[in-house]
Amino acid sequence: MAKELKELTKRSENYSQWYNDLVVKADLAEQSAVRGCMVIKPYGYAIWEKMQRQLDDMFKETGHVNAYFPLLIPKSYLSREADHVEGFAKECAVVTHYRLKNAPDGSGVVVDPAARLEEELIIRPTSETIIWSTYKNWIQSYRDLPILCNQWANVMRWEMRTRLFLRTAEFLWQEGHTAHATREEAEEEAQRMLHVYGNFAEKYMAVPVVKGVKSANERFAGALDTYTIEALMQDGKALQSGTSHFLGQNFAKAFDVQFVDKENQLQYVWATSWGVSTRLMGALIMTHSDDNGLVLPPKLAPIQVVIVPIYKNEEQLAALNEKLGAIANKLKAMGISVKYDNADNKRPGFKFAEYELKGVPVRLVMGGRDLENNTMEVMRRDTLEKQTVTCDGIEEYVKNLLDEIQENIFQKALKYREENTTKVDTYEEFKEQIEKGGFILAHWDGTPETEERIKEETKATIRCIPFEADEESLTPGKCMVTGKPSARRVLFARAY
Amino acid sequence: MAKELKELTKRSENYSQWYNDLVVKADLAEQSAVRGCMVIKPYGYAIWEKMQRQLDDMFKETGHVNAYFPLLIPKSYLSREADHVEGFAKECAVVTHYRLKNAPDGSGVVVDPAARLEEELIIRPTSETIIWSTYKNWIQSYRDLPILCNQWANVMRWEMRTRLFLRTAEFLWQEGHTAHATREEAEEEAQRMLHVYGNFAEKYMAVPVVKGVKSANERFAGALDTYTIEALMQDGKALQSGTSHFLGQNFAKAFDVQFVDKENQLQYVWATSWGVSTRLMGALIMTHSDDNGLVLPPKLAPIQVVIVPIYKNEEQLAALNEKLGAIANKLKAMGISVKYDNADNKRPGFKFAEYELKGVPVRLVMGGRDLENNTMEVMRRDTLEKQTVTCDGIEEYVKNLLDEIQENIFQKALKYREENTTKVDTYEEFKEQIEKGGFILAHWDGTPETEERIKEETKATIRCIPFEADEESLTPGKCMVTGKPSARRVLFARAY
Repeated sequence: MAKELKELTKRSENYSQWYNDLVVKADLAEQSAVRGCMVIKPYGYAIWEKMQRQLDDMFKETGHVNAYFPLLIPKSYLSREADHVEGFAKECAVVTHYRLKNAPDGSGVVVDPAARLEEELIIRPTSETIIWSTYKNWIQSYRDLPILCNQWANVMRWEMRTRLFLRTAEFLWQEGHTAHATREEAEEEAQRMLHVYGNFAEKYMAVPVVKGVKSANERFAGALDTYTIEALMQDGKALQSGTSHFLGQNFAKAFDVQFVDKENQLQYVWATSWGVSTRLMGALIMTHSDDNGLVLPPKLAPIQVVIVPIYKNEEQLAALNEKLGAIANKLKAMGISVKYDNADNKRPGFKFAEYELKGVPVRLVMGGRDLENNTMEVMRRDTLEKQTVTCDGIEEYVKNLLDEIQENIFQKALKYREENTTKVDTYEEFKEQIEKGGFILAHWDGTPETEERIKEETKATIRCIPFEADEESLTPGKCMVTGKPSARRVLFARAY
Repeated sequence: MAKELKELTKRSENYSQWYNDLVVKADLAEQSAVRGCMVIKPYGYAIWEKMQRQLDDMFKETGHVNAYFPLLIPKSYLSREADHVEGFAKECAVVTHYRLKNAPDGSGVVVDPAARLEEELIIRPTSETIIWSTYKNWIQSYRDLPILCNQWANVMRWEMRTRLFLRTAEFLWQEGHTAHATREEAEEEAQRMLHVYGNFAEKYMAVPVVKGVKSANERFAGALDTYTIEALMQDGKALQSGTSHFLGQNFAKAFDVQFVDKENQLQYVWATSWGVSTRLMGALIMTHSDDNGLVLPPKLAPIQVVIVPIYKNEEQLAALNEKLGAIANKLKAMGISVKYDNADNKRPGFKFAEYELKGVPVRLVMGGRDLENNTMEVMRRDTLEKQTVTCDGIEEYVKNLLDEIQENIFQKALKYREENTTKVDTYEEFKEQIEKGGFILAHWDGTPETEERIKEETKATIRCIPFEADEESLTPGKCMVTGKPSARRVLFARAY
């Protein structure tokens, strides 16, 4: 059984298969009976809940409140903002009827043709349109601004090729939608939230990200600017992990949302929107995990410490229960989530494999000999190193170890990214390098045409124009493709 | 402005209008552009979040975990369980297509007829079918049981007549779905969760509820037994506030979910489901609020204490800020949510009216004279009583006052319910009494036909057969309608 549990495809053999195996075997998610829609299983959902709680706290700290807007959007709303409809309206779930009836032949239920909607409704692919149609009624004066709303919701995009967490027809996310009196304030908000995402990714997920702005081709449909955090996965592909959009006055104009400013003039409202989704689960998995299973950052692990007693008889178990129960309670009192697993229907080896697969950061094991010596074996999931330590002060030791693991996996991922970020100056070099994966910093002439050509010929896209770069990258140069002037290097990669 | 804010319809004039006014004016929710779907505004959502957090904690304390299942359900699934399809399948949103395309005439977007789904998908009205189709893959052996999952989700029922929170096409809820090896365990679970709901309603919402079992007519579609908590609103109508269902083996049989028991025999799994929704917001509002606005139980109030300084000049404001800021911080440190409102663009009278409307349980006001005397004015929202108290120990005073308000509004609601629960013995009396509203305890012969007749003739239904009753109510008698034998009194009311 222990063996079967661990039978993951190796990353070196087939990274994509390894990912699918891991998501299913670690009980994170699975395909449902509905094409492209996933079931998020309790263990996967527990990680998502930890992400949600932390992000929600960070949104509230920056002055945001939650609200809830309708799931369904009138079809005509999508056409109001021209770029938006081009980018979104096409692949989505359409509600056309509101009633079923018994099939005349008794075979089940059929759609009642008499119950056809006058106007079809779309399951939200994102909520700018329905929210801005609502904001119209909330905003009259500059005193009503800013509005800083977020919603936690499910959305649906009818993707043709889906992968658990990374690209699913239905997914869970949060979407912030803010309204401001001035352009400056809206731009500041869009950047503020991008930095919130960056902090969350690095400090909680332990995923290093490059923050920057998207090129025109990669902008959100309807945005003037899209900011992004980009992470590098173990297979050398980029994963866009969160975006924040400065929407200008586009949606305000589309939905006629104006306010009276301090000078008593009518003005259109300035907007932002920003979101992260269950896709972050994919980033988490593909940044840290290994051939033995998940590696979770302690700050997001549903179980941070598992304690397993090894015993030969009931008497020994009773003694271990007493000793380990006390340690478990002390750890819990310190705010650490602990599972004490003394179940007798599974062998220790099976338990070890299961908790490795599930990425529990720290494992404590105590047997009869340890009991005599007042020691225990401590295994850290990130390095798989084992150490025998004294039980005196074990709680502080574990607490520090969790912090150390959190830091270590971040540093490891950062090192990987640094080692896999290269600068190239010719298109030949670029084509060669892109096959090896990783981030590439290169010069580009700034035109959509060149970007499009690179994408077609190499499947690489501009992930972003990074906010932070070394001096050399900020020095003007020549476009690697056309030789035309380039203001600075930008970040390329193949992406999920 | 202060006057306009408070212009609620009086309850005595038109209760239904008062409710609608209050929901909108207190910024709880509003109608959206999509028929029957509401926007839950930030203040309303903040109350819902507090409910969610508390319920979620209570579910986890009783061993449950969260998960997420798809929004869409294949149409054929609804027909699998015969009673279920009768009860649910008819009025629901049907997805028939998955793509839009540009209208040939450039007028916007139209549904792409080429993108018709082979099988239509239904937006979940409840998730038993999709969840049991999933559980089939999760359950092989008794070792896989019990499964104790809950999900927080949006659901949709195409109601013809909708009212904010009480009955909306889309609403938010949680739905627990559990799977058990034995009938006894499932029945116990269904009752356990009903008691969780009862405790939540009484201890957090301060809403007294009658717990009991539904008659066959009022059972959930597909259940063997439905347990319910029933609350009495101020207008004498009942509001079903939460239900828990013992589903027997119906869904296991419909989706062929069997397990190997300890004796190595194949058995069908036993099921429960249970849910509460944003309808609880309606119960909260209609139990406590008054002609001045919301009255919120302190345990669910987004703002528990508001502090307002009254000042003549900047110097006085500075002194008040210092004094009151310190008090606010101490209250916050005690875990109390405080808003300190020293905004200078609104007059105190306006602020008072606004916080009354929004149901903030305690208001503290300090002016120049108070500052000199080291006193403040304390107003409690439930009774609107004002008192001048010393600032020494004000924090403890406020903390105790919040507890007192929580208890007082519960007792007030309980007294109202007791005064509006009557026993009647003849159908004539019943018809007369039901016009006055309230709960009626009466004898019934136990047949669906009699229940149906009572409903048709009086619009009253059996809310439940209460778990707890006085001895007289448990004494056999004669049905008030047919004169046939009755085992005990049951609870009638007109209901929302």
